[in-house]
Amino acid sequence: MTKKVAVLPGDGVGKEVTKGAIDVLNAIGQRFNHQFEFSYGLIGGAAIDTEGVPLPESTVAVCKEADAVLLGAVGGPKWDAVPTQLRPERGLLAIRKELDLYANLRPVTYYDSLADSSPLKKEYIQDVDFIIVRELTGGLYFGKPSERRTNGSEEVVVDTLYYKREEIERIIRQAFETAKVRRQKVTSVDKANVLESSRLWREIAEEVSKDYPEIELEHMLVDSAAMQLIRNPKHFDVVVTENMFGDILSDEASMLAGSLGMLPSASLTLNGPSLYEPVHGSAPDIAGQNKANPIAAILSAAMMLRHSFGLEEEAKAVEQAVEHVLNAGHRTADLANGSHYLSTEKMVEAIVDTI
Amino acid sequence: MTKKVAVLPGDGVGKEVTKGAIDVLNAIGQRFNHQFEFSYGLIGGAAIDTEGVPLPESTVAVCKEADAVLLGAVGGPKWDAVPTQLRPERGLLAIRKELDLYANLRPVTYYDSLADSSPLKKEYIQDVDFIIVRELTGGLYFGKPSERRTNGSEEVVVDTLYYKREEIERIIRQAFETAKVRRQKVTSVDKANVLESSRLWREIAEEVSKDYPEIELEHMLVDSAAMQLIRNPKHFDVVVTENMFGDILSDEASMLAGSLGMLPSASLTLNGPSLYEPVHGSAPDIAGQNKANPIAAILSAAMMLRHSFGLEEEAKAVEQAVEHVLNAGHRTADLANGSHYLSTEKMVEAIVDTI
Ligand SMILES: CC(C)[C@H](C(=O)O)[C@@H](O)C(=O)O
Ligand SMILES: CC(C)[C@H](C(=O)O)[C@@H](O)C(=O)O
Repeated sequence: MTKKVAVLPGDGVGKEVTKGAIDVLNAIGQRFNHQFEFSYGLIGGAAIDTEGVPLPESTVAVCKEADAVLLGAVGGPKWDAVPTQLRPERGLLAIRKELDLYANLRPVTYYDSLADSSPLKKEYIQDVDFIIVRELTGGLYFGKPSERRTNGSEEVVVDTLYYKREEIERIIRQAFETAKVRRQKVTSVDKANVLESSRLWREIAEEVSKDYPEIELEHMLVDSAAMQLIRNPKHFDVVVTENMFGDILSDEASMLAGSLGMLPSASLTLNGPSLYEPVHGSAPDIAGQNKANPIAAILSAAMMLRHSFGLEEEAKAVEQAVEHVLNAGHRTADLANGSHYLSTEKMVEAIVDTI
Repeated sequence: MTKKVAVLPGDGVGKEVTKGAIDVLNAIGQRFNHQFEFSYGLIGGAAIDTEGVPLPESTVAVCKEADAVLLGAVGGPKWDAVPTQLRPERGLLAIRKELDLYANLRPVTYYDSLADSSPLKKEYIQDVDFIIVRELTGGLYFGKPSERRTNGSEEVVVDTLYYKREEIERIIRQAFETAKVRRQKVTSVDKANVLESSRLWREIAEEVSKDYPEIELEHMLVDSAAMQLIRNPKHFDVVVTENMFGDILSDEASMLAGSLGMLPSASLTLNGPSLYEPVHGSAPDIAGQNKANPIAAILSAAMMLRHSFGLEEEAKAVEQAVEHVLNAGHRTADLANGSHYLSTEKMVEAIVDTI
């Protein structure tokens, strides 16, 4: 099969890790006889530098013509002084909204060979395997008003957590669909003892669950979930939650896997191309040093094969190659305890060779 | 000295653990020649059952006449069907607002004797000692509107994250004051790359920091903080953040201490009585079984001695007694790995005897 992939390397290590993911896609293409055609777009700081905005029209066009989008990372101290509305992160928020990428899937997987890298004791994380389904285009991230006001001499500020019923419904449905091909359990995380939006969320979760009688639904308060993710991560199969809670909980959960450098993500839409990106950021401190861990980006490419192209066997081949290479003792700097580690390129090579 | 303490046992294990804390205060009174006078009020489910509301006027009056308030916990499955506005948790939110308890202090302390109880590896948590300063009377918890709406055929829901400048300023000032008598470092947690309220928060933190030139201020994004709390908890001294972020991060951080049953809190106001309560909830599953860990409530009483009564030596005596008893190997059920553990009452006795 032939597929068009829009690549948005972005800033910092984004360039290095997307390059690794492309090499891996090409290796898969060779082995399984597919062709991946790559086109490129600017986003984040890279786009600000040349076009003056974090998400140029041309980038949106490149994405819309593709079958899927591969993103690196955005941001860096270089653009810290730029006004808020033009910051690199705005490019990321804008592309999510433009492509209606409402469902952010963040799997958290345990690798036996990496148990030493996690701050958690092995008996707590062994065989952990869950996925966070984070709502990505609503909530506090996009609600209006989001502004300062002056009431007489008083300065006040407001942000708005806003959801339409259908936005909540589709993300919860996505979670149930995800649970169907996993261990049949959905944990819906909210703060229903405080927020009205959480009470509606809980109601809709109950309604949707009627369409999935074989799947267990439980509700958990977000504070309790932040605790349980550490205390008993094996408890979870599919966790579904709103945008901000998902942002916090998924970064927390990344610690179970040993390094943020291991975590891939998929941002799915119902129509048009979905987007795949590592959970980690642009890591300006190590950018350009051939030192970043490319695995999160490579596993994101595997998610692309699975979710956008329906190529399950190919996705598994990537995931198994990663596991194989880790089992063989190969480590990038973030995973190595000592001084001996592979460069980004060498790690990519090891994975490509395995494929 | 003579001090009046209003006691609101609340629901579930709240009754058992506040009783333990009272015994400890009395022991301190004997040893140091103080007198503590206790008055009682209903809150939460206990108040709903007899008065029909989660925070009766009479309870507010009892609190306002006291020098400090000791709270147990509220809530339980018995009141799950009660309408939202009458739920036990509403009593807690209402007393926070009534007494203007804007500053919630949640210290996280490492006990060498409990290293086995934590999901984290010892080398990560050894000597951890930080305090979360959570804003408690603003943000998403109290902002209006918080409601459902119908736009034509569309159902939408909205919650509001609202702060006045002075609300942000006083909590940040509290954090700097706290850092002054600790390790001179404040980590202000926000989501300034997304929220306008966080950008104002960051600005005010910078402004306030000018009054504390000797104290280091750093800013951290909430997702990153959720990660760092696990990866490098020794990094932190004083963490200051808004209400909802503080709710999530402090429950997460409780895992460092091994058990939620160890974590005390103080909710301070500028005028009138402050309130002290364990971070844990009413634990309906073990309520009435003489099985709850009373230490969080007892350490909350120690915070009362320190913050409301200025009795530092007495506070230390309580904290040292707790440490002594733990070092001697005494454990309640939540901390014990095996079947051998102390009842709530026996644990209280051990601590009282040490004092
Ligand atoms: C960069 C930032 C706006 C973004 C978010 O908060 O969603 C990031 O943290 C993420 O999780 O993808
Ligand atoms: C019971 C609930 C409303 C409360 C909160 O969210 O503040 C609790 O979780 C806490 O942290 O004290």
